[in-house]
Amino acid sequence: MSELRQQIERARAGLPALLELDAGARSTLISRMGESLVRDQAEILRANQADLQRAEAAGLSAAMVDRLRLDEDRLHGLAIALRLVAELPDPLRDDAELRIREDGLRLRQVRAPLGVIAMIYESRPNVTADAAALCLRAGNACVLRGGKEARESNLAIAASLQSVLRDAGLPSELISVLDDPDRSLLNELLRLDDLIDLVIPRGGEALIRFVAEHSRIPVIKHYKGVCHLYVDAEADLDQALSLLVDGKAQRPGVCNALECLLVDRAIAADFLPRVGQRMAELEVKIRASADALPWLPQAEPNDEWGVEYLDRVLAIRLVDGLNAALDHIAHYGSHHTEVICTRNADKAARFVRQVDASAVAVNASSRFNDGGELGLGAEIGISTTKLHAYGPMGLDSLTCRKWVIEGQGHIRHR
Amino acid sequence: MSELRQQIERARAGLPALLELDAGARSTLISRMGESLVRDQAEILRANQADLQRAEAAGLSAAMVDRLRLDEDRLHGLAIALRLVAELPDPLRDDAELRIREDGLRLRQVRAPLGVIAMIYESRPNVTADAAALCLRAGNACVLRGGKEARESNLAIAASLQSVLRDAGLPSELISVLDDPDRSLLNELLRLDDLIDLVIPRGGEALIRFVAEHSRIPVIKHYKGVCHLYVDAEADLDQALSLLVDGKAQRPGVCNALECLLVDRAIAADFLPRVGQRMAELEVKIRASADALPWLPQAEPNDEWGVEYLDRVLAIRLVDGLNAALDHIAHYGSHHTEVICTRNADKAARFVRQVDASAVAVNASSRFNDGGELGLGAEIGISTTKLHAYGPMGLDSLTCRKWVIEGQGHIRHR
Repeated sequence: MSELRQQIERARAGLPALLELDAGARSTLISRMGESLVRDQAEILRANQADLQRAEAAGLSAAMVDRLRLDEDRLHGLAIALRLVAELPDPLRDDAELRIREDGLRLRQVRAPLGVIAMIYESRPNVTADAAALCLRAGNACVLRGGKEARESNLAIAASLQSVLRDAGLPSELISVLDDPDRSLLNELLRLDDLIDLVIPRGGEALIRFVAEHSRIPVIKHYKGVCHLYVDAEADLDQALSLLVDGKAQRPGVCNALECLLVDRAIAADFLPRVGQRMAELEVKIRASADALPWLPQAEPNDEWGVEYLDRVLAIRLVDGLNAALDHIAHYGSHHTEVICTRNADKAARFVRQVDASAVAVNASSRFNDGGELGLGAEIGISTTKLHAYGPMGLDSLTCRKWVIEGQGHIRHR
Repeated sequence: MSELRQQIERARAGLPALLELDAGARSTLISRMGESLVRDQAEILRANQADLQRAEAAGLSAAMVDRLRLDEDRLHGLAIALRLVAELPDPLRDDAELRIREDGLRLRQVRAPLGVIAMIYESRPNVTADAAALCLRAGNACVLRGGKEARESNLAIAASLQSVLRDAGLPSELISVLDDPDRSLLNELLRLDDLIDLVIPRGGEALIRFVAEHSRIPVIKHYKGVCHLYVDAEADLDQALSLLVDGKAQRPGVCNALECLLVDRAIAADFLPRVGQRMAELEVKIRASADALPWLPQAEPNDEWGVEYLDRVLAIRLVDGLNAALDHIAHYGSHHTEVICTRNADKAARFVRQVDASAVAVNASSRFNDGGELGLGAEIGISTTKLHAYGPMGLDSLTCRKWVIEGQGHIRHR
């Protein structure tokens, strides 16, 4: 048996002990993990320094180095995040509706953990603590495979969390770190479908595609967000401009930011000059379809749609009404977040019905597609897979429901 | 672009028209499909005769030929099954809880179809009609890839169903049949993750493993059912015997039948002789652990656990109480159905909590793990995957929930 298989079997062997904890004990465990990170901050920051030095020596970009960096403030933020996870409603709460059949057979669908969850992520070491806390709070073991550039930080954070497990008399293998600098273990991990229940990749598109391609285990994907705002002929244009500014310019680097504006041709002359001016003020570059250029003096012509810029760049296309907008989104959208701005309720309803995205917004900013804003509390990612979870994944998404059938010797006969 | 890709793109292109139908129209469509099968029975039975002749010439087993066979009765049964699908509650019903935030933003999670569902199955041609009806009722297009031995029957059934789509002014490509005698198209199909949302394989373990291995699309698996009955020292032994007889002997060939009996060593002397006698009467062969053989004169020694016999064969093992039973099930179970017989409520609760199976039964037969018995109506299979659906998959499992965010120009600011 390979070493990796043995490691995951030990993680799995820890599940029965975790299942015996009640909600309060699981919650206490998570807040203690937050406290432990603060107590162990000297070691964690020392490990992080080692990662940072290697990263700078290797010439990583300033943005990459910043994502890697931990300091006292960030570590305290992490501890607070873990306390919030501890305070969320119990994801294994007993809220199953009981149905009693005429013959007295009692049927319920109770919440149960998924089992062993593998998180595959890149440079940000805070994911190590966040993911472990969410998985354990929902009764799951986790296997954490972070980026090699954060190796020392991840090991130090995991050691701190594992000490809390040991103090509680639980197997420390419930948090299992994969030390895998060259993806060789990742390949093997993705084939252990008898031991791992779910793989969640977080990070760049290349990593996610690699995981989706090689995994035999169910994968919940968090692909890119190519979010559109369609401004209908019957839109309130002040409102539309405000939704555009919030979606595009307020935080361009996140997945629920807008990338493309679709404008009904009928209002191009009224709306586009205002868009051009406002985007210029906000230093947002525009790439527009040829027929929109007359109203947008600073724009470059665009011939590529469906691009996730994650930057101060906006694509603009004129369309012939709602149907053309729906076609564009069906072709170029990423199933993440799509927005319509209109005062026409029928068109809004049609947009909601026809658009296949984890969130569809009517006269509201794309930026609301977020676990916190939607009331889920902590989020482990935004799924663009429709299976199991679609949209922000909170704690409840890390559970399943199993049937409990209780009888007094009931048999089926036929 | 490959022919297959074009075919699936046409199926996908039919989705908007299907989404515009209300619940009543979708329901009418399904009952008309049932009527159409009866109206077209001459052609369907002629096509089935051709399949049967080829099957017999190729020397297929009598069981295989029987699964393939259609006759007037079976076709009428199929039409009735479709009428029942038409009468189920609408899977796209508007039951979303509305939450209004303090700032007036309105949040709902509405039911939406999954999109395009591929069904991969073997010889039974009735799956063609069942699967198409369930997929369409939930607003999905379907791609049907049946076994090559049922080729003519599947094409004739699909043609009948497609004529109903055309009569309703809908694209017939919403039901798309893959004519794929050598698995070459299947391989390509399983890589079209941008066009197909879900793959459901039904059939033998080899087929399901092939699909799970090669698919880049989410797969809901329906692996084997190796179901155990654990008879605790505190069980009512009359009840235990009755659960055993129902689970093992009443219909041994189905996935929720029992395959293995685990008996607490403390009651071996009381219980095993009764088991041996009853199984002999029912012509069920026994394969038992060595320590159980003294009480089971007719049994063969067993050294292989976790086997799905689907036959009049029962494995029996003595265990040292509940913990040992849980260990056995964790190791050899198939996440399908597991049963405990006990009068001790604490042990029952522990069994329910610890056993990872789509259904856990307490003092009730394993045979209740079935969509009809659990109140789901028609079932498209029993999932042993924990993601998205665990246990019997009814109509609702063919939908997802997407967020709808309605504002009056709400922006996030931060």
